[in-house]
Amino acid sequence: MELLKLIDIAGIAVFSISGVFAAMEKKLDVFGVFIIAFITALGGGTLRDVLIGQLPVSWMYNLNYGLIVLLSTLASMFFSNIIGNYQKTLLTFDSLGIGLFTVVGIQKGIMLDFHPAVCIALGTITACFGGVIRDILLNNIPLIFQQEVYATACILGGVVYFVLMRLQMNEMITEMISITFIVVFRLVAVRFNWQLPSIYKIQKK
Amino acid sequence: MELLKLIDIAGIAVFSISGVFAAMEKKLDVFGVFIIAFITALGGGTLRDVLIGQLPVSWMYNLNYGLIVLLSTLASMFFSNIIGNYQKTLLTFDSLGIGLFTVVGIQKGIMLDFHPAVCIALGTITACFGGVIRDILLNNIPLIFQQEVYATACILGGVVYFVLMRLQMNEMITEMISITFIVVFRLVAVRFNWQLPSIYKIQKK
Amino acid sequence: MELLKLIDIAGIAVFSISGVFAAMEKKLDVFGVFIIAFITALGGGTLRDVLIGQLPVSWMYNLNYGLIVLLSTLASMFFSNIIGNYQKTLLTFDSLGIGLFTVVGIQKGIMLDFHPAVCIALGTITACFGGVIRDILLNNIPLIFQQEVYATACILGGVVYFVLMRLQMNEMITEMISITFIVVFRLVAVRFNWQLPSIYKIQKK
Repeated sequence: MELLKLIDIAGIAVFSISGVFAAMEKKLDVFGVFIIAFITALGGGTLRDVLIGQLPVSWMYNLNYGLIVLLSTLASMFFSNIIGNYQKTLLTFDSLGIGLFTVVGIQKGIMLDFHPAVCIALGTITACFGGVIRDILLNNIPLIFQQEVYATACILGGVVYFVLMRLQMNEMITEMISITFIVVFRLVAVRFNWQLPSIYKIQKK
Repeated sequence: MELLKLIDIAGIAVFSISGVFAAMEKKLDVFGVFIIAFITALGGGTLRDVLIGQLPVSWMYNLNYGLIVLLSTLASMFFSNIIGNYQKTLLTFDSLGIGLFTVVGIQKGIMLDFHPAVCIALGTITACFGGVIRDILLNNIPLIFQQEVYATACILGGVVYFVLMRLQMNEMITEMISITFIVVFRLVAVRFNWQLPSIYKIQKK
Repeated sequence: MELLKLIDIAGIAVFSISGVFAAMEKKLDVFGVFIIAFITALGGGTLRDVLIGQLPVSWMYNLNYGLIVLLSTLASMFFSNIIGNYQKTLLTFDSLGIGLFTVVGIQKGIMLDFHPAVCIALGTITACFGGVIRDILLNNIPLIFQQEVYATACILGGVVYFVLMRLQMNEMITEMISITFIVVFRLVAVRFNWQLPSIYKIQKK
């Protein structure tokens, strides 16, 4: 349980950073950068909490969430001059974020006794929709739908999670392996330009 | 009531199919296609349930919804090679979907004792917003706002529904006529390029 | 309290008008114009009510909201021929709207005993997201993220509100000053092309 809280905080931090870099690419002002960081970091979890009816959403009565976003935003704006390559940094932090948040969302679903398929959906929503809303607001084509293995990583990572759980694996190890699986799968997939077996073969002939 | 359940299932199926074709036009991978089908089919109803506060949304505790999307997706990916013309197929299934879902949304509003105008709004939301979210995610201009008679069909169909209800018409017949009205109105409107009387006359002079 | 109701009504009216002008620029039909006006006027408040869990959202059981939108829409479509310059009119009414709605959202947060930072967030959401959804649906780049001092005006106006409240200022005066501050700040900022101190200096060298 304590570990889950740490994972959640780490997810918020890395997604804030990914939001900052996406917003700075578009040259937003400092408030705009913060708002985009906030939405990227907390948008997926907010959508999940709305869908399951846990309202008001948690960042309204726990100010620590906003504080983590604020600190991550300030730190990454400060370091952005050193980092240089926005696009690549964004990818790395985005990948870390989806790994962490998929597990957070799955655990939320398990706590509420939902079916594993619904838990995986909640994990995928938590992981992906902060970034989707970020991309829509910045008028980018959502990363998730650019033929990249993105939601796929979350869904497969969720399957890994439940397989390990069925095998009576220790919870902490289950979480760690699932997160690592998602992050590595996504980074390797982008690096080697992996694609799922095409469903468009016949049209292409 | 039983009929309403059938209408709901049919609506989910046809909207899944419309989602599959829209996603395949953009060459998404197989998971992306499924997610878009899911959002198209269940997005409008999900938004409606969020707005009226029926949470958690129904597809979380009734897995049949997801199953219908899955089966419709697999079937339509399979048959897509035969069908060929994506755009036209999308239009047909989209029109069927808005007819079916408008009635589903209206009945939900009636069950909750809302004013007819709110019921029609709920019908229009149920019918239109799955497609709107689909279009936004795929970076298409939402069909609903492309000067097509689209939301208009839902709103007029809703008016037909309440007129028939006032006339003490049998519920099943009321539903059937309203659905048929919406589907035919939309298809005929697109076919003959109907437009509402312009409100832009003076500017054009 | 009575004043707050008046402010809310005025906000709905001016945002409806801004929605009408944005929709007419895209040559939507009359139903499309009404739907966009409705979403612009009530979208921010709806999102706020969803996030705090006040469901069903208020326009479902208080038809006056929809009625104000309808009347504002009809009036502004009627007068649109006289006004001529859509873009400028849109800006003016949009600025009025964010001033009014920021205060409405802040007061909602205060009534629910939220922290001032959350109240300001609720004010900003109420003020900005109707317009954001409008822009996304019309396929415009959201005004809020076009380097304009927009959300910034709401956030600063919210700070002004809480500073005045701490100073034991009369509530009505607090509201009036905050609204005026936001509207004037935004209009002056656009007029003189104000921008926040850039956070991009080093990259530009």
